[in-house]
Amino acid sequence: MNAGTHPTHDTSPSGTVLTSGRNDSAVDRATEAARRVIDALLRTDRGNANLERVAEELNGVAQHLESHSPAVEERLIDMWNGEGVTRHDPVTGLENAIAPPLVLEGKSDGSVEGTVELTLAYQGPPGHVHGGVSALLLDHTLGVANAWSGKSGMTAQLNIRYHSPTPLFEPLTVTAKLDTVDGRKINTVGNIRTADGRICVSVEGLFIDKTVPRPR
Amino acid sequence: MNAGTHPTHDTSPSGTVLTSGRNDSAVDRATEAARRVIDALLRTDRGNANLERVAEELNGVAQHLESHSPAVEERLIDMWNGEGVTRHDPVTGLENAIAPPLVLEGKSDGSVEGTVELTLAYQGPPGHVHGGVSALLLDHTLGVANAWSGKSGMTAQLNIRYHSPTPLFEPLTVTAKLDTVDGRKINTVGNIRTADGRICVSVEGLFIDKTVPRPR
Repeated sequence: MNAGTHPTHDTSPSGTVLTSGRNDSAVDRATEAARRVIDALLRTDRGNANLERVAEELNGVAQHLESHSPAVEERLIDMWNGEGVTRHDPVTGLENAIAPPLVLEGKSDGSVEGTVELTLAYQGPPGHVHGGVSALLLDHTLGVANAWSGKSGMTAQLNIRYHSPTPLFEPLTVTAKLDTVDGRKINTVGNIRTADGRICVSVEGLFIDKTVPRPR
Repeated sequence: MNAGTHPTHDTSPSGTVLTSGRNDSAVDRATEAARRVIDALLRTDRGNANLERVAEELNGVAQHLESHSPAVEERLIDMWNGEGVTRHDPVTGLENAIAPPLVLEGKSDGSVEGTVELTLAYQGPPGHVHGGVSALLLDHTLGVANAWSGKSGMTAQLNIRYHSPTPLFEPLTVTAKLDTVDGRKINTVGNIRTADGRICVSVEGLFIDKTVPRPR
């Protein structure tokens, strides 16, 4: 997808998926399995699982992957190839095992929205989402909302308010919408809420309209 | 470590490590190997590595770990056992493969500080740290700074400013310090800077003094 063809609410129908799509490729399946390992490592009984063997097997997998890795400069060019949606970011990236991953759809009112359930790896207070993880999800979603409105910019400022605890293991809706544009300043708002509509975290973001060159 | 014995700059020497320590346990080695897998999955040549086999092997590891996992409620009690430093948070947790992990030391002036190099999994703009990842590191570091000053609270508000791009693959210093206390309101500041002292991101945080009960 080229920058010129990035979907916006002027050109695309409501419900357009704005994040990288699942394509059932081997890399997507391997990354999904890595997510399962991250979660299972946090869940498993430390005294009962054979963690020595797990360490050996994971190091073996890493060694195989590393032996087929190009230099990072070369890989960066490849991973940023094309101008549209990427597949590697830490929020929506299907090839990034750190990403939950969040799937975001564009709405006809200009907002973007996605629902996600977070697990133990994202925990802050007992049984609840880490405040910094909420910030991570919101920052990214605000950027996608800008793109859906035909804008792109670098984060300049985020004002984040924590209204009520954000639960793990429950569907959370993450939403954002470009609010105003004043010259190169883009103001975008968003929030995270529970299934029954309780707002957990809200954010106001200021972005500066500029394009970041991709490596080539 | 009990809450009563959590180190503070009144009771402990400068240079006290405030995050979970490496203990060369099997779970730490397995988690370190999982971090290596996350990174290698992003680096590897999609056309050359045997990603089908990698997916199979990772699912096999996950299945073994899951077959030894207690119910999540039971595991939550175990992971929050004790009152001091935890080992599972997404920033400093040695048992959480999502955590870089950041190691924080307490200083005699009341600040806390740590240095970390971030890799591809934490990427936002090309070759640079995701703005939301910076927010995650700062939120957590502010909380640790509060503890080092003998306070603890829930994040109520974060004002984050992005001054200049935050590079991947370079040592970044993350620092925070409790600034003022006004009744139950705790104001804490922090920043992320490069090795040559350039400030990339700064934050002002407001925390509300309250204790979150641990599951038991």
